[in-house]
Amino acid sequence: MRAAPSPEEIRRHNLGTLLRHVHLSGPASRAALAERMGLNRSTIMALTSDLTAAGLVTEELPKTVRKAGRPSLVVRPESDRVYVLALDVGADRLVVARVGLGGTVLDRADVARPGGTHNADDLISALAAVGRRLVRGTEAGALCVGVGVAFSGIVRQEDGVVRHGPNIGWVDVPLGTELTRRMALGLRVSVGNDANLAALAERARGAGAGLDDIIYLHGDVGIGGGVIVGGRLLGGEGGYGGEIGHMVVNPGGRPCGCGSRGCLESEAGELALIALAGRSGEGASGRRAVEQIVDAADRGDATARSALHQVGDWLGYGVANLINIFNPSMVIFGGVMREIYMGSAAQVRSRLAIDGLTAARESVRLRTSSLGEEATLMGAAELAFSDVLTDPLETLARVRNAD
Amino acid sequence: MRAAPSPEEIRRHNLGTLLRHVHLSGPASRAALAERMGLNRSTIMALTSDLTAAGLVTEELPKTVRKAGRPSLVVRPESDRVYVLALDVGADRLVVARVGLGGTVLDRADVARPGGTHNADDLISALAAVGRRLVRGTEAGALCVGVGVAFSGIVRQEDGVVRHGPNIGWVDVPLGTELTRRMALGLRVSVGNDANLAALAERARGAGAGLDDIIYLHGDVGIGGGVIVGGRLLGGEGGYGGEIGHMVVNPGGRPCGCGSRGCLESEAGELALIALAGRSGEGASGRRAVEQIVDAADRGDATARSALHQVGDWLGYGVANLINIFNPSMVIFGGVMREIYMGSAAQVRSRLAIDGLTAARESVRLRTSSLGEEATLMGAAELAFSDVLTDPLETLARVRNAD
Repeated sequence: MRAAPSPEEIRRHNLGTLLRHVHLSGPASRAALAERMGLNRSTIMALTSDLTAAGLVTEELPKTVRKAGRPSLVVRPESDRVYVLALDVGADRLVVARVGLGGTVLDRADVARPGGTHNADDLISALAAVGRRLVRGTEAGALCVGVGVAFSGIVRQEDGVVRHGPNIGWVDVPLGTELTRRMALGLRVSVGNDANLAALAERARGAGAGLDDIIYLHGDVGIGGGVIVGGRLLGGEGGYGGEIGHMVVNPGGRPCGCGSRGCLESEAGELALIALAGRSGEGASGRRAVEQIVDAADRGDATARSALHQVGDWLGYGVANLINIFNPSMVIFGGVMREIYMGSAAQVRSRLAIDGLTAARESVRLRTSSLGEEATLMGAAELAFSDVLTDPLETLARVRNAD
Repeated sequence: MRAAPSPEEIRRHNLGTLLRHVHLSGPASRAALAERMGLNRSTIMALTSDLTAAGLVTEELPKTVRKAGRPSLVVRPESDRVYVLALDVGADRLVVARVGLGGTVLDRADVARPGGTHNADDLISALAAVGRRLVRGTEAGALCVGVGVAFSGIVRQEDGVVRHGPNIGWVDVPLGTELTRRMALGLRVSVGNDANLAALAERARGAGAGLDDIIYLHGDVGIGGGVIVGGRLLGGEGGYGGEIGHMVVNPGGRPCGCGSRGCLESEAGELALIALAGRSGEGASGRRAVEQIVDAADRGDATARSALHQVGDWLGYGVANLINIFNPSMVIFGGVMREIYMGSAAQVRSRLAIDGLTAARESVRLRTSSLGEEATLMGAAELAFSDVLTDPLETLARVRNAD
C-alpha cells in the first residue's frame, strides 16, 4: 500500500525530474522549467541551487534577453564535468565512449577485437582497459557517475549476465560483474540488450520522442528488438522480452543461428539479403555490403532488386504481425535495418496493407532511426545515467565517496 | 509533475484497495486486511466503517474463534445487494448476467439471437431488454453499480465503438452508447474486447492470479488475445493491441476473415481443425465439433489425429513467437482453444522446444483457463466493477443519484 511520499521523497523526485529535463532537452530557463514541471519558481530555484551545489548544473544569464524585467536564469547541465562511460559491444563494433550529462559524446575509442574473438576473458579485459584509460584521461574534477553496456545478445538485466551472445559465441558470461571488477571504478557496470537500450534512446532523444508505444527493430548481424508498451520497456518475466528477430515468419525457411528456421532475422536480416543478392563471401562488412546492394538496386540491378523485394516481403510479414499484436504508434528501423528498410519500403508497405488489421495499421508510422549508428551507444549512456537521474544527490555523494 | 497526494486521495485509494481485496479474495478479517495492506488496524477500522455505511461491505464476528482475546471482525462484500450487469457478446453466445460484488453470478439469461444475426439494431435492443429485465427483477435496495460488455471483435475502448466484429459483420457500430441509451439505467455501458477482458479476469481470479506477464489466447470462432505486460493490459496506441490471432504463421496459407492468409486464427482455430478433420458442414456447434474431434483422436481416429497434429504445429509456431516476443511467465488457453490445446499439447510443446529461445521458454508455463466458459463474462463484470473499485464512495453516490 502506498502511503504519502515524504517531503524528502518529493524533493528527490523533483530534483531527478529537473535534471532529466535539461539532460534530455538541453539548457532551459528557470521559468520554462517551472512551467514544464508545474512547480512555482521559488521551488525551481531551491532545486537548481541544490543541483548547482552538487556540481550537476550551472546557472547563467541568458545570452539574449527579449523581455523587460529580470531575466530568468538558464539552467545548463554540467556536460564536461559529469559524465558516464558507455560501451557498445556489437557484432562488428566495439566502442567505449565518455558521454557527458546532456548526451554529448566527449571522447570515444574503438576497441581492437583481441585475436580470439570468442574469448570472453580477453575481450572483457580489453574493454576494461580502454574504459580505465578514458577515465584517467579526464581533467581533474570531472566525475564518472555510471557505466552502461549495450550488448548484442540476450542479457539478464538484474546482474548483467550474458545468457546468449550468438554473434560472439558466449553462453552465461558474467559480463557485468567482470567489467565492474576489472574497471575498478567503484561503480557497478549495468548491462542491457543493445536493441532494448537503443529503443529507449530513440524514445528519449530520437525518432520516437514523446511516444508511448514503439517498436524498434535493430539490425546488427541479426535482428534485435526493443518494444515500448505504455511508456515502459517490455521486459517480460526475466527481462528477455522483445526478441522479435526470432519470430518465425517463414516456417521451414532459412536456418537461423538460434536453431530454428525462417526467423525474421534469418529471412530479412543482412545475411539473408547478402546471400539472396549473391554477394556472400565478397568480404565487404555487413553494413557496407547492404549499402552496395541498395545502391545496385537503385541503378537497376535485377538481382539486387529481387533480393530486396524478397527480404522486404518477409520484413513486411514481421512488421504486420508486430503491428497487429502491439498497435504501436511507430515502428523504427535502426542499425543496418535502416538501410534494408529504405531499400525495401514499398514491399514492406504493400505487405502491411494486406496483412495489417485496419484499426492497428491506419495510424502507425514507419520511420528510420534518427540516432543512427549511435543509437545503441546512446542507449548504453542512458542506462548509465539512470541512477543520477533518479536520485541526483545521493548518487553524487556515493560516487564522490568511491572516487 | 506529481505533487503529494492529498489525504482525501489517499483515503479514496485505500477504500478502493480494501474493497478490491474482499472482492477478489473473499471475506477477510480486519487483521488480515491490515497486514495485506500494510496499514494499522485503526485505519482499517475507519475504512471499513465508511464502506459499511455506504452499503458495500458488512462486518461480522468470525464463525470460529481460535485465539483468546477480542476477535477481529470479518469484512464481507455485499454480494447480494451490490452488483453489475455483465454482457458476453460472442460468436455463438449471448449472455447477460447479474454478478455480485465478490464475483458471484446472481442470475443470468441467455439471449435468443434475433432473426437477422447481422442486424446491430435488433441485437442491441434484445440485449438491452434482457438487461433491463434482470435489473427490474432484483429485490428493493439492490444496486447496479456498472455495466460491462465483452465483445468478440475489435473495440475502441474509450467510447465502446465496435470497429470490426468479424463474426457478426459489424463495422463501426456504437455499441456502448446505444446500449447506454436503450438500457436507460443512468449508467455508462463500457465495452471491451472479449479476449482482453478474459485475460484480466484470469489474472484477477483465474489461472494467472498474481502474475504480471501473461498471454491469454481465446478461441471463439476466431482466436483473440489478451496480453498482460508488467501487470497492465497491452492496449497500444488506440487500444487495439493483442490481436495475436492475426499473426501470420503460415504465409500463403488458409484464407482468413481479415483478408490475409495463414493467420494463427485461420491455421489453428476451430474452423481449421474442423476442416482438416473433414467435419465441416456436419452441423455440430464449434465447441461440440472440436470436442468430438479430440475424443475421436483419443480413440485412435487417424484423420482426427492428423488434424490435431497439424493444428498443434501451427499453434506451436504462434506460441513460440509470442514467448520469444514477450517472455511471459504463463500462456493460458481459453474458450475453445482450451480444447484445441488439450488435444494438441504434445505438438505445441515440441514446436516450442525447436522455435522458442531457451532464456524465454525455460520458465514459461502453459495452462488452460481456469474460468473456462465464464472467463469473458467475468471479464465483462470486472470491467463493470472498475469504477466502484477505483472510487467506492463517489461511485455509490453517483449511482444512487441516478437510480
